[in-house]
Amino acid sequence: MNRRMIFYTVGRIAIVEAALMLLPAVVSLIYLEKSGFSFLITAAIALVLGFLLTRFKPKDTSIYAKESFSIVAYAWLLMSLLGALPFVISGFVPSYIDAFFETVSGFTTTGASILTDVEALDKGLLFWRSFTHWIGGMGVLVLVTAVVSNIGDRSINILKAEMPGPTVGKLLPRSRDTAKVLYIIYIALTFIQIILLRVGGMPLYDSIVHTFGTAGTGGFGIKNNSIASYSPYLQWVITVFMLLFSINFNLYYLLLIRKFKTVFKSDELRFFLVMVLCCIAIVTVNIAPLYPSASEALRHSAFQVSSIVSTTGYATTDFDLWPGLSKSILMLLMVVGACAGSTGGGLKAARVVILLKSVGRELQKLLHPRSVKTVSTEGKKLDDTTLNGVNSYFSIYIICIVVIYILLSFEPFDMETNFSATLACFNNIGPGLGKVGPTTNYAAYSGFSKILLSFAMLLGRLEIFPLLLGLNPFIWKSKRNKAFKINKTNK
Amino acid sequence: MNRRMIFYTVGRIAIVEAALMLLPAVVSLIYLEKSGFSFLITAAIALVLGFLLTRFKPKDTSIYAKESFSIVAYAWLLMSLLGALPFVISGFVPSYIDAFFETVSGFTTTGASILTDVEALDKGLLFWRSFTHWIGGMGVLVLVTAVVSNIGDRSINILKAEMPGPTVGKLLPRSRDTAKVLYIIYIALTFIQIILLRVGGMPLYDSIVHTFGTAGTGGFGIKNNSIASYSPYLQWVITVFMLLFSINFNLYYLLLIRKFKTVFKSDELRFFLVMVLCCIAIVTVNIAPLYPSASEALRHSAFQVSSIVSTTGYATTDFDLWPGLSKSILMLLMVVGACAGSTGGGLKAARVVILLKSVGRELQKLLHPRSVKTVSTEGKKLDDTTLNGVNSYFSIYIICIVVIYILLSFEPFDMETNFSATLACFNNIGPGLGKVGPTTNYAAYSGFSKILLSFAMLLGRLEIFPLLLGLNPFIWKSKRNKAFKINKTNK
Repeated sequence: MNRRMIFYTVGRIAIVEAALMLLPAVVSLIYLEKSGFSFLITAAIALVLGFLLTRFKPKDTSIYAKESFSIVAYAWLLMSLLGALPFVISGFVPSYIDAFFETVSGFTTTGASILTDVEALDKGLLFWRSFTHWIGGMGVLVLVTAVVSNIGDRSINILKAEMPGPTVGKLLPRSRDTAKVLYIIYIALTFIQIILLRVGGMPLYDSIVHTFGTAGTGGFGIKNNSIASYSPYLQWVITVFMLLFSINFNLYYLLLIRKFKTVFKSDELRFFLVMVLCCIAIVTVNIAPLYPSASEALRHSAFQVSSIVSTTGYATTDFDLWPGLSKSILMLLMVVGACAGSTGGGLKAARVVILLKSVGRELQKLLHPRSVKTVSTEGKKLDDTTLNGVNSYFSIYIICIVVIYILLSFEPFDMETNFSATLACFNNIGPGLGKVGPTTNYAAYSGFSKILLSFAMLLGRLEIFPLLLGLNPFIWKSKRNKAFKINKTNK
Repeated sequence: MNRRMIFYTVGRIAIVEAALMLLPAVVSLIYLEKSGFSFLITAAIALVLGFLLTRFKPKDTSIYAKESFSIVAYAWLLMSLLGALPFVISGFVPSYIDAFFETVSGFTTTGASILTDVEALDKGLLFWRSFTHWIGGMGVLVLVTAVVSNIGDRSINILKAEMPGPTVGKLLPRSRDTAKVLYIIYIALTFIQIILLRVGGMPLYDSIVHTFGTAGTGGFGIKNNSIASYSPYLQWVITVFMLLFSINFNLYYLLLIRKFKTVFKSDELRFFLVMVLCCIAIVTVNIAPLYPSASEALRHSAFQVSSIVSTTGYATTDFDLWPGLSKSILMLLMVVGACAGSTGGGLKAARVVILLKSVGRELQKLLHPRSVKTVSTEGKKLDDTTLNGVNSYFSIYIICIVVIYILLSFEPFDMETNFSATLACFNNIGPGLGKVGPTTNYAAYSGFSKILLSFAMLLGRLEIFPLLLGLNPFIWKSKRNKAFKINKTNK
């Protein structure tokens, strides 16, 4: 276990976070808010911590799977612990647990809130809250890899641990270049959305903040009724961009280098789009009687389906009042989630495609026991290792939901509330149904449950394994030579 | 596709059912109930149908996987369609859909009822209702295999399709002998329970009927409050036997031939018992404040945990009023279910053990990518085919739950009701929570939902594939030579 490299990299994250805090500080300065000082104080704390941790430069910069899990787990924890400070220091969120929940919810792009009155917060704090979505969406370690050069060649392990999806492709030979390309696409899409929102008459501040929420597929808004008060045009722009940000970013790169055929042949993209369109159609018909016109029903349906499937969590209407069928479909979409390699959460469409295909193969096998059919996706044959990996991920994914739900059932709420809260936090959506529906919030949960749900959000965002293995004290104990021994004996 | 063999075997089932109906007819005669005639009428119909279907003896008696799926699927459908007739003919259940639901619930050993007042039914009908549990528990085709000799050597395929669990071991070289041994154990345990209940002062009729419900892990009772009115001794006897009937019957055979070590080393048995004991302990502590004494809380906890995990569904108390934690644990147990090779339903403990072990291997692999760890259970190494089979089963199992739940969400009930109804029917338990809790029933559901839930019960009892593939019209079309071609090209 290369502990020094873990301390060093986590330390760098603290320094990067200190730098990022200057942006909300500037916003506070523009609006002449006193809460701006809370960012400066936090930045100072982060800087000191960062310098202490990076004091000893490690000679051995190698990072194996174990180290990268720990780096990712501790980096995200530290980021959230520090990021919560401005809320508490400024006095707007008195409880540190609440502030921690809110910040984890931000970085993991969940968008679940404990705030009963969002509009009461300072603009600087609201900016920081939404900015955490943008940072967390693509991943803070991806950012560090893109900016910092001396993390070593093994940093692909970190990218793998932080980026969602069953397979992380290296777009370019060097992982640093891959990280750069991803961030350039991310920034470009962000700018386009801000411009389109401005064109529709949304104020600049609102445009930036809502774009952060859309880009990271987070869902923090600045109004108590989320997006409901904005014009249909603005709602449609956000609908389209929620979907754009839930598509695999590799596809945008392929479009840029003019590999159109590969993009249109993508199994995951096709499945995702067909699913989204079908769900929008069914929900529109189901909710049509509730709205004055068909076009309004379509708008709400398209917005809400996109919001949930992209795991953003914005709302234009109280979908908790929709009929049971629509609510069940939304819950299903919570689980499926966005495409792999996007900023969205959930199980990921790519995994669902692989699971469905392997079920299909199994059925085929039962009828024709001697047939040998392989499962292939995105034009590539899947070997047993990948298949077993996806299957095990699905098992552990379901186990996580069950365990979180059981622990949450100490709360005196009904099953719809607790179960949808579990799904909404674990899949990084934000609002659930019932008492955690779009018009309400998570304030009523106990401190224990808030910490549990924060953990669920991190578990979901980092796709379970890094957190589970990275925070496991047992892997700290295993020494290099012991690890070597294990490899040797098992070869 | 050997259609003649399908017709022939399904026809034999109809004849067997006609014979089985004589038993409730005798009960009706003893109590001098007019409803006895409804059994005779139904038996006559079944006989005529049976003779028509078995008129042409097939020359080719070979049964492949495809044929056995169809045989099992159509046999169970026909059994339920015929078994529902006495309820309608006697006039006690006017709606045929209701009677069909009740009979499917009986044969699949679910125990979900549409009857609001069980005690109003004739003794003959109540006997038949519970007798369907006993028949369905071990499987009607297993019975036919045990009794009839000329079904051919391939009948292991039928056993595999009808018996629960990921691996069906042939206890003895000939599947007919295996079926016989299983039935002898089944009958012996049944007799012991009847005697123990009689010793506790339960009337003979009640003892027989409740033993049928316990043996098949069904759960139909003859009192509106299930088992609540019987003495603590009787409740404990039923608790113990519910657990005994949810253990793999192969283990009893191993005990008989004195292979004690193999039994005590069984991974599935150990996991199952540890899980049951832990859940009883947690639930006892959780519900203790609701009952006057700790021993009473323990009794209800042990009874209810055993009832749910064995997928029986008897109740001694209204567990719908228990705290959230206990209810969540019961829901989890609904999913896990009993051991493979028992009369219980659910996912089966053996599958859960394999899933947990393969997740463990995956975690190990992430930390030590080069390690080669194999998954083994019951002392045997599991190959990739079995592992993929279990994983795919789990995926399709979850997909079934999601689809049934979404289709059920047309009903105006809350999530707890609909979701627990889905779990309780699909896993063959019976009572759920909320509006389908132990003190209430399924009468309030629409005709569509009752048919849907009947289908869910069959799907769960036959472990999905036989019903899904056996009823699929596409496999009827595929001809022998085509099947041969597929096998040839894929070799």
